[in-house]
Amino acid sequence: MGSTVVLIFSLAVTLAAFAFAAWLYRWVKAQPAGNARIAEVSGYIADGARVFLNREYRVLALFAAGMAALMLVFLPKPIWQGNALPNIIMAVAYLCGAVFSAVAGKIGIAVATIANGKTAEAATRGIRPSFLCGFRGGAVMGMAVVGTSLMGVALVFWITGDSSALLGFSFGASSLALFAKAGGGIFTKTADVAADLTGKVELGIPEDDPRNPAVIADNVGDNVGDVAGMGADLFDSNVASMAAALVMGSALDAAGVGGGHGVVTVFCYAAIGLLASIIGVATARMGKNGNPTFALNSSTYVTTGVFALLTALATALFGFDWRLWGASTVGLLVGTVIGIASDYFTDDRRKPVHQTAHASKSGPAFTILSGVSYGFLSTMPALVGIGISALISYKLCEPLGPGYAMFGISMAAVGMLSIVGMIISNDAYGPIVDNARGLAEMGGLGDEVIGITDELDSAGNTVKAVTKGFAIGAAGLTVIALLGAFLSEVNEAARAMGMAAFAGFDVMNPNVFFGMLVGAGVPAVFSAMLMLGVSRNAMRMVDEIHRQFKTIIGLAEGKPGVKPEYDRCIDIATRGSLRELIPAGLMTILVTLAVGFIGGVSAIGGYLVGNIISGLLLALFMSNAGGLWDNAKKYVESGHCGGKGSDAHKAAVIGDTVGDPFKDTAGPSINTQITVVSLVSSLMSALFLTSSLFK
Amino acid sequence: MGSTVVLIFSLAVTLAAFAFAAWLYRWVKAQPAGNARIAEVSGYIADGARVFLNREYRVLALFAAGMAALMLVFLPKPIWQGNALPNIIMAVAYLCGAVFSAVAGKIGIAVATIANGKTAEAATRGIRPSFLCGFRGGAVMGMAVVGTSLMGVALVFWITGDSSALLGFSFGASSLALFAKAGGGIFTKTADVAADLTGKVELGIPEDDPRNPAVIADNVGDNVGDVAGMGADLFDSNVASMAAALVMGSALDAAGVGGGHGVVTVFCYAAIGLLASIIGVATARMGKNGNPTFALNSSTYVTTGVFALLTALATALFGFDWRLWGASTVGLLVGTVIGIASDYFTDDRRKPVHQTAHASKSGPAFTILSGVSYGFLSTMPALVGIGISALISYKLCEPLGPGYAMFGISMAAVGMLSIVGMIISNDAYGPIVDNARGLAEMGGLGDEVIGITDELDSAGNTVKAVTKGFAIGAAGLTVIALLGAFLSEVNEAARAMGMAAFAGFDVMNPNVFFGMLVGAGVPAVFSAMLMLGVSRNAMRMVDEIHRQFKTIIGLAEGKPGVKPEYDRCIDIATRGSLRELIPAGLMTILVTLAVGFIGGVSAIGGYLVGNIISGLLLALFMSNAGGLWDNAKKYVESGHCGGKGSDAHKAAVIGDTVGDPFKDTAGPSINTQITVVSLVSSLMSALFLTSSLFK
Repeated sequence: MGSTVVLIFSLAVTLAAFAFAAWLYRWVKAQPAGNARIAEVSGYIADGARVFLNREYRVLALFAAGMAALMLVFLPKPIWQGNALPNIIMAVAYLCGAVFSAVAGKIGIAVATIANGKTAEAATRGIRPSFLCGFRGGAVMGMAVVGTSLMGVALVFWITGDSSALLGFSFGASSLALFAKAGGGIFTKTADVAADLTGKVELGIPEDDPRNPAVIADNVGDNVGDVAGMGADLFDSNVASMAAALVMGSALDAAGVGGGHGVVTVFCYAAIGLLASIIGVATARMGKNGNPTFALNSSTYVTTGVFALLTALATALFGFDWRLWGASTVGLLVGTVIGIASDYFTDDRRKPVHQTAHASKSGPAFTILSGVSYGFLSTMPALVGIGISALISYKLCEPLGPGYAMFGISMAAVGMLSIVGMIISNDAYGPIVDNARGLAEMGGLGDEVIGITDELDSAGNTVKAVTKGFAIGAAGLTVIALLGAFLSEVNEAARAMGMAAFAGFDVMNPNVFFGMLVGAGVPAVFSAMLMLGVSRNAMRMVDEIHRQFKTIIGLAEGKPGVKPEYDRCIDIATRGSLRELIPAGLMTILVTLAVGFIGGVSAIGGYLVGNIISGLLLALFMSNAGGLWDNAKKYVESGHCGGKGSDAHKAAVIGDTVGDPFKDTAGPSINTQITVVSLVSSLMSALFLTSSLFK
Repeated sequence: MGSTVVLIFSLAVTLAAFAFAAWLYRWVKAQPAGNARIAEVSGYIADGARVFLNREYRVLALFAAGMAALMLVFLPKPIWQGNALPNIIMAVAYLCGAVFSAVAGKIGIAVATIANGKTAEAATRGIRPSFLCGFRGGAVMGMAVVGTSLMGVALVFWITGDSSALLGFSFGASSLALFAKAGGGIFTKTADVAADLTGKVELGIPEDDPRNPAVIADNVGDNVGDVAGMGADLFDSNVASMAAALVMGSALDAAGVGGGHGVVTVFCYAAIGLLASIIGVATARMGKNGNPTFALNSSTYVTTGVFALLTALATALFGFDWRLWGASTVGLLVGTVIGIASDYFTDDRRKPVHQTAHASKSGPAFTILSGVSYGFLSTMPALVGIGISALISYKLCEPLGPGYAMFGISMAAVGMLSIVGMIISNDAYGPIVDNARGLAEMGGLGDEVIGITDELDSAGNTVKAVTKGFAIGAAGLTVIALLGAFLSEVNEAARAMGMAAFAGFDVMNPNVFFGMLVGAGVPAVFSAMLMLGVSRNAMRMVDEIHRQFKTIIGLAEGKPGVKPEYDRCIDIATRGSLRELIPAGLMTILVTLAVGFIGGVSAIGGYLVGNIISGLLLALFMSNAGGLWDNAKKYVESGHCGGKGSDAHKAAVIGDTVGDPFKDTAGPSINTQITVVSLVSSLMSALFLTSSLFK
């Protein structure tokens, strides 16, 4: 199979994904709607999300323009040292990466904020239609993200023929992800925490009560954090895994090592992954007596099976190497295992959640200690899984020739991310049904309907733990692959300058060790800055809510016709999230530059490794501990350990509040932080090589 | 200066330290005592500590006997492959390491449990005599630990002439430290948490109230955790740093690289460090208008200055290399800087503590989030400091010849640990004055005296943060040096078997990467097991306390003559700590063996690095966050943010309870865990080299 054929195949699959997304969108839109109150509130949410995205994209545009200008001057080489064309290509590719990802986010949000109301109303007709509406709404995001990312990568590669332009494209996607995931994460938890503190704790009014000025901001947050943020994060990982594989694959193809099928295999597998996700989404359905969790999981397994089967078929048909197929299958399997392990630590039928709920009976300190402990324990299976899949895929592909071993790791990452379309669909389902629950409450649809949306919501939470574990695992393997891409870039630059090639990064080299220690600190500092940002911003919003309850007469009593100023809270969340995010992002980039200019390429090698290790550790810890506390609270609320209103419940609520920024702000943003650092390093490799204090 | 001369000098200094310790002991013992109640309670504490130590040493003896038997058969080589002598030496050295450290612990505890009562009574005569009594009591431990560790190392080296026997000695010290630090840490926090939960929270009786059955166990815990545990930890670090330096130094001397002063310089500097500590302790005194914190800090600075001066003198006089002096001075300076950074994050006059106290006004979740965030931030200065001191000392000593660069790092570790005698003295002062406060309360010495002991106690807490940061920094540099020792051992084994030497461990090697990821998970799992152990054990003790209040008539009302059964609580803490510790210790050793036999020497290289990085990160995070919460609570109690009894105070107390096992059980035990793993790896290197699944 030639490379043009496979590119055309890839583009054809992306077009199929877009067509399918359009069909899903129209299907969702055609669902009946009639409740005026739901339409009104759903409109507020859509407006709020739009306002946030527009403001975020405006700030991002400034940031991206600055970065593009710098790239134009300096990357891949200072413009005065060579010709300008590669620099122009790099800068344009960068901008495309950001724009493609932004467009996917826009589409996803647009659908999600329609689907929420439709899902709520569908619940009046039963759980099965309601599930389908929520799931199909989320699937639009899944198709849009994977479609645009594959299309972008294919177009950039086809037009430029230059794999390092892909790093520019990938960095563009990462820049957007940084804003969308970390900014959205701050937004959503600012609103959530402020709404809970004032509503549930101070006033004793229920969640989603329309009197609470923060309630719309809270629902907007679900969308911008979980739909747009998670989508951008996985867009980023997906592009980065393909970019890393293509950088290495095209170097191997060019050098004539192995079968010369490197690039072709990557595109073919990625396209098949999207195809498998389309099939998985199309067949997803709740059985008659089934439950929604089962439906979500079984469609994921369908996707996995279809992917393994079709790639095996393609491998046999087009004569790809079976070892590469093996590597991608190992990645896929380990991804599933990591997801299952995350599920164990956060599932409310398992020991960790039960123990934490029981510990809550002795007070909140024990809730926290138990959650931290299980969170720490939960890191081990994923770390071992990532380590083993890297080891196996490396050893599997080593016999194919020099350079194939690292390429094998990148194929494992591609394999792990192949079903990402399905993963995003499952993930975006969560905030839609969560919103639907709120709308059912605000629209007065009655307890039975709220019960249905509760069941759908709970399935969303369970599946979310799996997809988060999966996303972190995929990011882990991707950044290992990016390390390979970094070395490949360094050596290309070294060769061009007539310097000796680097074989690798020896931990006994003090530059490497120095880099490693600093790199390990960065995710900790980054998370701390985001979490402090959430706290500060939530305090601002709490002040605003107090002001509204004081000055708007009749609000607290719920006098008909009196409405809070929802906009103000959305505005605080939006401004604050951008204000708190930028220092954290700058810190990440500046520390990377400092390490590179102090210790050179070897320090950066160590820095990336330290960053990956500590980043994975902290991301797994925070995501799983947060999920565990959330479910421990729900477990108590369902009547265990004293039930709602008991001391154990109060303690569990405190655990959940701590867990919120852990699992929805800091934990998942670390993925993006790692990718940003890896890409900045790869892009700057030539400069670090020539101008550093120590060599 | 010949090597015999320097060994004699070293032994002479250790004898001087013992003589000084004996003088201090007699001085403390000669202080007046008269209060019968204090004598009684102090007796209970001394008995309790003795019971714990004896039982701990009995379990340790079994463990050590088993390990020694294994070493006899397998290490350094399987006994059937060579002659038996090195194996016998190794096993005996191992046992000596454990016994020497145990003896130092025994002495320290014996003095501390006398000094507490004397310090309380001295407080009736004023703060200055009381300070001196507490400080000199602690200094006995300082002198005993550093004296026995230097003596042990010197004797083993002198008698065997074999530097790898030192690794056996060091491993013995680590085994003891594992029991003393982690076991003592579980003991102390079991008692502390149970006493607080039942006393302060449930019954509303003050801290140190004699009606509380856990009160003696709590005071015993201060001694076994902070005196014996911290002493064993620093004994371990001190021995490990010397062992690493001597393994590399004697290899360099034997190979004839450099000036041949490697071994001599290590002993000379170590002996001067002890001498400087003697001088520092002897001159420590509270000025007329001074405060105790100032007195403790200024004697530390005296020690530092004397050390730098005397080593410079020795270097000039005996023609040592100035670059080695430079490396040791860099270590000393960076150690001080790390201590100061830890102080910033835990000092109640600084922003982190203030912010956390203010956050408490919004509820305990914000106390936790703020503490976690600042704890994360606090890791960066220490990580950068360790990285930079490794980088500078390496580059400084690189010109001396091949192998000198890593030796330079080990000299930095020796330099950082040179003032350890002073550090332990400061640290052991803490629990003595803390106990003194309790005894003043139980002995009814009146509010003024309690006020004096409170002031002394608060100085102890402040200085403790500095010494903990210092201990972690020293452990960090030491394990980097141990990594060098590990490589040196591997290459010796490889040479003996005619295999190619390892240049280092490349992070692009998947075995290394696999090891690194697994190694990073170990400190997280280890801490989690210890913290879950504390929670479980505290619950057992709470049940026992409830039983006593129910069955012992008149206890709750404080009827004269009615006493709780203190022994039962001590027994629960003792049994529980050993029962909870053993699985954690075994996990550490078994995972190390699994990684070694799967991925061989290169996986172990990565494993050690991953372990160091994640271990430092988590140890710094937990120790500093714990100290911060402790001081935030005290800050609120001193009248800020609503003061005692306010909601902010309740939230701050929850933060402190979470912080207790962070800072006194898990955080500082990680040091020991890292050293144990490093030493097991070095000792097993020959076996890993020949028998592993992957190469």
